Amino acid sequence: MTTTVITGIGELTTHAPGHDRPLTDAAVVVEGSHIAWVGGAAEAPAADQQVDAGGRAVVPGFVDSHSHLVFAGDRAPEFAARMAGESYAAGGIRTTVAATRAASDEQLTSHVARLVAEMRRQGTTTLEIKSGYGLTVHDEARSLAVARQFTEETTYLGAHVVPAGTDPDTYVDLVTGPMLEAAAPYARWIDAFCEEGAFDVDQARTVLAAGEAAGLRGRLHANQLTYGGGVRLAAELGLTAVDHCTYLADDDVAALADSGTVATLLPGVEFSTRQPYPDARRLLAAGVTVAIASDCNPGSCYTSSVPFCLALAVREMGMTPAEALWAATAGGARALGRDDVGVIAPGRRADLVLLDAPSYVHLAYRPGVPLVAGVWQAGRPG
Amino acid sequence: MTTTVITGIGELTTHAPGHDRPLTDAAVVVEGSHIAWVGGAAEAPAADQQVDAGGRAVVPGFVDSHSHLVFAGDRAPEFAARMAGESYAAGGIRTTVAATRAASDEQLTSHVARLVAEMRRQGTTTLEIKSGYGLTVHDEARSLAVARQFTEETTYLGAHVVPAGTDPDTYVDLVTGPMLEAAAPYARWIDAFCEEGAFDVDQARTVLAAGEAAGLRGRLHANQLTYGGGVRLAAELGLTAVDHCTYLADDDVAALADSGTVATLLPGVEFSTRQPYPDARRLLAAGVTVAIASDCNPGSCYTSSVPFCLALAVREMGMTPAEALWAATAGGARALGRDDVGVIAPGRRADLVLLDAPSYVHLAYRPGVPLVAGVWQAGRPG
Ligand SMILES: [Zn+2]
Ligand SMILES: [Zn+2]
Repeated sequence: MTTTVITGIGELTTHAPGHDRPLTDAAVVVEGSHIAWVGGAAEAPAADQQVDAGGRAVVPGFVDSHSHLVFAGDRAPEFAARMAGESYAAGGIRTTVAATRAASDEQLTSHVARLVAEMRRQGTTTLEIKSGYGLTVHDEARSLAVARQFTEETTYLGAHVVPAGTDPDTYVDLVTGPMLEAAAPYARWIDAFCEEGAFDVDQARTVLAAGEAAGLRGRLHANQLTYGGGVRLAAELGLTAVDHCTYLADDDVAALADSGTVATLLPGVEFSTRQPYPDARRLLAAGVTVAIASDCNPGSCYTSSVPFCLALAVREMGMTPAEALWAATAGGARALGRDDVGVIAPGRRADLVLLDAPSYVHLAYRPGVPLVAGVWQAGRPG
Repeated sequence: MTTTVITGIGELTTHAPGHDRPLTDAAVVVEGSHIAWVGGAAEAPAADQQVDAGGRAVVPGFVDSHSHLVFAGDRAPEFAARMAGESYAAGGIRTTVAATRAASDEQLTSHVARLVAEMRRQGTTTLEIKSGYGLTVHDEARSLAVARQFTEETTYLGAHVVPAGTDPDTYVDLVTGPMLEAAAPYARWIDAFCEEGAFDVDQARTVLAAGEAAGLRGRLHANQLTYGGGVRLAAELGLTAVDHCTYLADDDVAALADSGTVATLLPGVEFSTRQPYPDARRLLAAGVTVAIASDCNPGSCYTSSVPFCLALAVREMGMTPAEALWAATAGGARALGRDDVGVIAPGRRADLVLLDAPSYVHLAYRPGVPLVAGVWQAGRPG
C-alpha cells in the first residue's frame, strides 16, 4: 500500500485523546485509505510520497451530517422574496417536490454530483444526504438510490411534508408502509420533519418506530420554527441526533444532556431565513454534545459551505473557534454514530483538510474566504 | 487586437443605462482590455475566440473600494478573544503596526500579492488599498509604494491611529507635513480614521485639507463605533465617499443625501466585531448612494470576500440582492470616482465575473459558497 507523509504542518488539530491543543510542526502518515502515524515533523517516518504543508494548518475533514441534495428546480426568486420581507414557511418544500418528480434520474444524479464536488472543494469528506422531495413510493426510493451513489449515510425523509391534496393520516400510512419498504434498501437512517405545518410528535413517533422495525436508525428535524415536543421525543427514544434545536425550553436542554442525543445546529438556515439563531453556548454549558452541519437544501438554506456555518457558529451561537471546529468534524461524526472519521489518529480514515492559513482559527477569522487548499478523503487527494 | 465573444450567458447583469433588469441569453464581446459589444447571444458578432458560459450568470467584476492589505503579523488570537467576549478597540491596530514596521518590503509585497490573488479568485477586479500600519514617514511611504504595485487606487492613511507614546497634535503635524510629502507620490487618496480613540473631527479636517493641498482626494472612516461628526464633515467637504456609517443620526443621513457623498458600508466588520450592522435600507430610502466593500484588514475584518459581504448586506442590512450587487460593483466604482468599471457596456473596461450559478441572486442565496467560476480583468482571464 502506498504511504504518504504530509510534513511541515504548522498546526495540526487532531481531536484525538490526549491532544487538548493542536500540535505544532507536525506530520501525518497516510497508508492507503487510513492514517498510519501522527506526530512531530522531526520524528516522521519515511514514506513513498512526501507532501509539504508549508507551515499551514491541517484539520480533520468536515463531517456534514445533514443535507438535502437530491432535488431539482431553483428557488432563488423565493429567497429574494423572503429577503424582501416574506416569512419562511415549510410549504415551500412543495415547489421543489414538483420539480424533483419531473426530473430524470440522470438529472438528479448529475445535480447531486455537482453539489458533492462543491462540498468536497470546501473540505467536506463525510456527507449525509436525505430524500424528501419525492414523496411518492417511486420518487423517494429513486432519490435514495441516487444519494446512495455518493454516500453510505443516506436518510429516508418521506415524512418531510404532507404532499398537497393528501390527507395527513393517509400519508403517514404510506410513509410507514409501501414507501418505507421501497426506501429501506437504500437508506441507513429514517427522519421526520417534526414541526407545525409538517408532522406532529405522534406522527413522528409512528414514523420512527416503523423505520426502526425496518432496520433503519432514527434522527429528527425538531424545534426549528417553534417550541414543540420533537426534541424531547428524540431524547426519549435515545436517537443518535436531533437537528435544528432552535427553540428549546429548559426541559429540552435537560433531556438532551441526559440522553446523550447529539444536538445538530444548522446556522445557515437561520442566516438564510432571517430567524434567531440557536444558542450553542447554552447547550454546551448543559453538557450537550453539539454538531454543526450545512442543511444544504434549496428552500431554507442553500449553502454547501461548512466553513461558513462554522463562522456563523462563532459569530452567532456563542461558540469558540475550537468548539465550532470540533462540532463540524468530531461532532458531525458523533451525529452519524461514526468513530472512524472526524478525528486524525492512527487507524482512522485519512480525511484531512489543508488550510491556506496558519491556524484553524482563520475559518472563523476569515469568513467567506475559500481557505481550503487541499483535501484528502480516505487517503485520496482532491 | 484580439477579440473574444463570451456567449451562452444565461443572465447578464450590466448596470448599463436602459438595462433595468439583467439580459437573458446574452453575449459580450471583449476587444483587448475593453468591452466592444453587449447584446443577445443570437446577434453576437464573430470574434477571434469564443467562450461558452453554459447558461450561467455573468456580473461586473467587484469593485472593492476599501481595504488595508499592507501589513504583517497575525491577529487570530485577538479575534478569538473578542469572540469569547472582549470588545473591539481601535488600539489593536498598534499590534499590527509593530509587525509591519519589522517586515521587509519583500515580505509586505508577497503578502499583498497573496491577498490580491485571493480577492481576484473571488471576483474582485478593482481594488483600493490603504496604508496605515506604518505610521512613520518611512513606513507609510513604503507601504504605499508596495500597494501601488497592485493598484492605482492607493490611499494614504497616516491618520489611522496615533502611535503609542506620541502626542496627538505632534502626530497630526507629522501626518500633514513630512509624512504627507513622502506618501503623496504613491497615493491617489487621503483618509483618516475619525473616531473616539483615533482622530476627532478637527484633526480629520486638518488632515484632509493638507492632503487636498498636496493633490490628493479625500475619503474618510467615520461613525463606525459611535455617533460623531465624521459623516457630516465628509458631506460638508463633498468627499467622494465616507466609509462605515454604522451610527448615523437623521442629520447624517440627510447630509449624505444632499452632498451625493457615497456611503460605503463594510458589513464584514460588524460580522467580525459582533457590532450592530449599518442600516442600508434607511440610506437607500433617503436617496443616498450606497457602496459595499470588504475593509479587509487583520484587526476588525479579515475577510477578502466581496460575495460574503454582499450576502451580509442582504441578510443584515435590508438590501435586495440586486441592490447589493449594484453596491458592490457600480457603487464601488462611484466610491472611487470611477466610471470605467462596475458596469458592463461598450467602452468600459472588460471586468467580468462568471458565476457557477444561473443568477446573481445566488451570491446571497448561497452564502459562503465559492461561486466565482471565472474572472476577466481588463480582458485578461484568470
Ligand atoms: Zn433539513
Ligand atoms: Zn478601514
